Amino acid sequence: MDFRTDMAIERRDIFRKANNTKDEIPGIQTKESNYKDNIHITKVIITNEQGALALGKPVGTYITIDIKNLKYATEESIEDVAINVSLNLKEILNKYVNKEDDILVVGLGNRASTPDSLGPKVVQDIDITRHLLKYIPQYIEEGSRPVSAISPGVLGTTGIETQEILQGIVENIKPKLVIVVDSLASKSIERISSSIQISDTGIVPGGGVANARRELSQNTLGIPVIAIGVPMVVEAATIASDSLDIFIKKMQQNAKSNEYLNSLENEDKYTIIKEALAEEKYDLIVTPKEIDDLIENMSSIVARGINKSL
Amino acid sequence: MDFRTDMAIERRDIFRKANNTKDEIPGIQTKESNYKDNIHITKVIITNEQGALALGKPVGTYITIDIKNLKYATEESIEDVAINVSLNLKEILNKYVNKEDDILVVGLGNRASTPDSLGPKVVQDIDITRHLLKYIPQYIEEGSRPVSAISPGVLGTTGIETQEILQGIVENIKPKLVIVVDSLASKSIERISSSIQISDTGIVPGGGVANARRELSQNTLGIPVIAIGVPMVVEAATIASDSLDIFIKKMQQNAKSNEYLNSLENEDKYTIIKEALAEEKYDLIVTPKEIDDLIENMSSIVARGINKSL
Amino acid sequence: MDFRTDMAIERRDIFRKANNTKDEIPGIQTKESNYKDNIHITKVIITNEQGALALGKPVGTYITIDIKNLKYATEESIEDVAINVSLNLKEILNKYVNKEDDILVVGLGNRASTPDSLGPKVVQDIDITRHLLKYIPQYIEEGSRPVSAISPGVLGTTGIETQEILQGIVENIKPKLVIVVDSLASKSIERISSSIQISDTGIVPGGGVANARRELSQNTLGIPVIAIGVPMVVEAATIASDSLDIFIKKMQQNAKSNEYLNSLENEDKYTIIKEALAEEKYDLIVTPKEIDDLIENMSSIVARGINKSL
Amino acid sequence: MDFRTDMAIERRDIFRKANNTKDEIPGIQTKESNYKDNIHITKVIITNEQGALALGKPVGTYITIDIKNLKYATEESIEDVAINVSLNLKEILNKYVNKEDDILVVGLGNRASTPDSLGPKVVQDIDITRHLLKYIPQYIEEGSRPVSAISPGVLGTTGIETQEILQGIVENIKPKLVIVVDSLASKSIERISSSIQISDTGIVPGGGVANARRELSQNTLGIPVIAIGVPMVVEAATIASDSLDIFIKKMQQNAKSNEYLNSLENEDKYTIIKEALAEEKYDLIVTPKEIDDLIENMSSIVARGINKSL
Repeated sequence: MDFRTDMAIERRDIFRKANNTKDEIPGIQTKESNYKDNIHITKVIITNEQGALALGKPVGTYITIDIKNLKYATEESIEDVAINVSLNLKEILNKYVNKEDDILVVGLGNRASTPDSLGPKVVQDIDITRHLLKYIPQYIEEGSRPVSAISPGVLGTTGIETQEILQGIVENIKPKLVIVVDSLASKSIERISSSIQISDTGIVPGGGVANARRELSQNTLGIPVIAIGVPMVVEAATIASDSLDIFIKKMQQNAKSNEYLNSLENEDKYTIIKEALAEEKYDLIVTPKEIDDLIENMSSIVARGINKSL
Repeated sequence: MDFRTDMAIERRDIFRKANNTKDEIPGIQTKESNYKDNIHITKVIITNEQGALALGKPVGTYITIDIKNLKYATEESIEDVAINVSLNLKEILNKYVNKEDDILVVGLGNRASTPDSLGPKVVQDIDITRHLLKYIPQYIEEGSRPVSAISPGVLGTTGIETQEILQGIVENIKPKLVIVVDSLASKSIERISSSIQISDTGIVPGGGVANARRELSQNTLGIPVIAIGVPMVVEAATIASDSLDIFIKKMQQNAKSNEYLNSLENEDKYTIIKEALAEEKYDLIVTPKEIDDLIENMSSIVARGINKSL
Repeated sequence: MDFRTDMAIERRDIFRKANNTKDEIPGIQTKESNYKDNIHITKVIITNEQGALALGKPVGTYITIDIKNLKYATEESIEDVAINVSLNLKEILNKYVNKEDDILVVGLGNRASTPDSLGPKVVQDIDITRHLLKYIPQYIEEGSRPVSAISPGVLGTTGIETQEILQGIVENIKPKLVIVVDSLASKSIERISSSIQISDTGIVPGGGVANARRELSQNTLGIPVIAIGVPMVVEAATIASDSLDIFIKKMQQNAKSNEYLNSLENEDKYTIIKEALAEEKYDLIVTPKEIDDLIENMSSIVARGINKSL
Repeated sequence: MDFRTDMAIERRDIFRKANNTKDEIPGIQTKESNYKDNIHITKVIITNEQGALALGKPVGTYITIDIKNLKYATEESIEDVAINVSLNLKEILNKYVNKEDDILVVGLGNRASTPDSLGPKVVQDIDITRHLLKYIPQYIEEGSRPVSAISPGVLGTTGIETQEILQGIVENIKPKLVIVVDSLASKSIERISSSIQISDTGIVPGGGVANARRELSQNTLGIPVIAIGVPMVVEAATIASDSLDIFIKKMQQNAKSNEYLNSLENEDKYTIIKEALAEEKYDLIVTPKEIDDLIENMSSIVARGINKSL
């Protein structure tokens, strides 16, 4: 099954739809809650291999924080979301490390490409303490956690796999846990820079926008890897496919239906369209026009959320 | 007829297709030529009101310079395109002003929004001489043309119509001609930051992405206005519409056609899709992922083209 | 008298020192106050021509807000200073315009040069309402003031005097008052980006860093002009001069003669000066004003040099 | 001896002056040459420990490329300097590695601080090949050298010593040589972003602006380290010290006594110094190193203050 999204919550929805069910999928648990007026939290827990196979994601916890109207967010509501991110992140961190354990924050992505610059932007605003604890411990509150941060760049600008860079650094500075911040692909335009996925499984490629990057997880780095991802792109083909769905539904509503159209409804139009678009060199990525503004609010939220939880 | 493109060449093609003809449209002349390996020039001349009505654009000359593979352009081929822009621009300038006449270059658009930042970026690289001729004429070659430049910002960031700002400046500094540089909407993804339209009609809103901006032309500013536009955006609905065309064609090829589909072929799917997408809050803009790189090359080309021709 | 500072408060101090007095200068009144822990406000009022002559500044009010440790400011203390700026600004505004009168905010300076970019940066964050009141008044609170804003650029990048641009715009959009935001020259390193001067006299060149720009004031624009200035640069000669003062004082304290000077010639003055400057918190780094341009050229050279050799 | 410069050529001059000699220092050889009109090359070779002790720099070769009027450089003359850098760099590279050996380019410094951003800017423009040779060797010319590049950030933004980061990466990806690009401290304003020092000794702290960073050299990384440095800062104390030299010389020429000094106390030293500095082309502007942070806070304050008052 090709999900074309990095988000567990969307994969669950696609899987349910494909299987014509609204029930829980075996091996998957879901918990929903709200925070303040405009924040909706969905926790998707993949409990066993059956669930992992269904969604094409490793066993673990995937928290999605959906924020309404972030584009017009006030200072206060930005703070609210940051607090919620921090609460969710703390809960996961407490499972894996102690309060004083050393943590490395990694901002993935290319700072020169707007939709891919979230990670480096977040890292800029992380409160770093590791060097202070090392060189001027007398000025730092006792019991403080050493925090370091790096933006290693992307394969295309460094010539080096992110995994190769991080393995070297992790071996040398020996943090107890890594938090990676990354841009994600989503199926939903409304989630672009308006949702946050926090998971305890690291980054395991396979779905979403095709990427040569290799796995960043406990398997490869030897320590727990928390991933904080924000949807930044939707494929144009996804949009075209969605619009075809809408189109076909309209035709059927108008009683213009016929066997072929009916049969089409349960087939994968994406492949037809993707092929068609590829033939026409339409192989592109959709980002909303306001991405520059959105990204400022979002990187502030994620950085504060991390800072507050560390 | 709603063309959804700012480019005369695309409007001509849409008009031809809608009228099932490959012949010249009455009131419109076309000349094609090549320059070097990778540059194709199409001159669309609207010669009378009949042509103007057909394309929804004022009588005048619209030169489209299409560049292949600009994304991977070498320094040398960037220089080639700049020379071609300069040749075409000079030809138009010579119709309206003398060699020493004062010219004001205006960079339209919002520098903070990547796809809209072309104008301000170009203005940054314009060689300004007006102040030198005024304060240190002894250091400037005799017969030099006074050139000034401004990026007035956009309505959303200034609260003032561009036209209001420019009228004031034009009245005060009295240039003989204005060159406006702007981002355009196109129907074709391949033209994004890879084509240049030069016209002698200024900017007359009506087509393309809806904009409240008012006309910038000889009518409103009292002096000739040359417009240099670069396609920067394609509407998502345009892409969806194109993909539906492709889809329907595929169905018909597969002998799955039926009356309804046949009838659809000559109708306006855009409106159906646009409405459908609007209902779903899909009202967005598509830009290719590499826009940041493309825009660097393109603003260098346009600035050099202007510099060389002035 | 050449003051080499744009700040009325520093001119007053220099004038007092030159005249060996700590009393008020005729034609000048001073009021001091504090706000919160870290904000000191000095109001210098030039009441008549005698005072204006003494300080080389027009009759009017000059409020200096000095902020301690802005570099390490928390969100909260930034808000405190903003509130104080607003209180002082409101007091001046109320003298000249009504609550609903149209105001134009002008950000002077060059956004591409860090020490000169304050004006354009401020304008980016101004809440613009003029276009909303014009096009969608139904969504705006009744009695709202129309606010517009523009960053016209500098003579070197536009070829046009700022005054020429503003006169045209003011005539066309007819605001009732202009607020100009600008970078200032100061005599004091501690004031760099840590003080704000608000005055009701506009900008009248003459002191500080030499500038060909012309006056921006009620005289030239026909409406009141409030100037908000922030010190951004100190001349190297000012620092050298200050350090000489310190040096000479030290020598005199030590009753050293010309003999000592002669002996000094082959010694290391650096240590003496370094110590003296450290006492005065002058421990800084000098970069030339054109560093932004220089660094662009240099990084291009080094990268090409490396590429060619690899 | 405290040299307060990272440049071997300046240290040689200081050492000569301190020892009242214009002859070669034992253990040091110098070769001078010119390239084109505006490039002067000085090769300072420290041949043994005596020379190393004299200049406080390791045994090795230090090439200084001084460029005249880089600020007004044409495209052509930038290319000329790049070619010269490449010739000098190639000569050093050929001593240590073969034509196909893997090289890692490291851009030191903080991209967010203008005077410290040279390294990251250079790395942005390096032609990276390592990943192409690994994943698509069929598209790469045979015999190509694998080149990778990274900007690790600075201790203050990562919390990790640059050396710790690089050791990990070097161990993991095993290049045969590292080129580090860095900003240097100089004694001379004219050299700011106008000179390049290439050395084969890596970076060994001790002189120049005090820095906690640790050695980057064959000793610590296990492979040859070529350092390319560009002077970006001069300490305020250096300028003050230089101006004192000039001042004292002037006084001695005028055979002025301590009486004169006493009389000076109440006079305007600024004019004397301004003239003296102008003669030496020291006509510049001082901004503190932290100007980028300061300006962010300040523009936020002023904008909020204006908004609140309108």
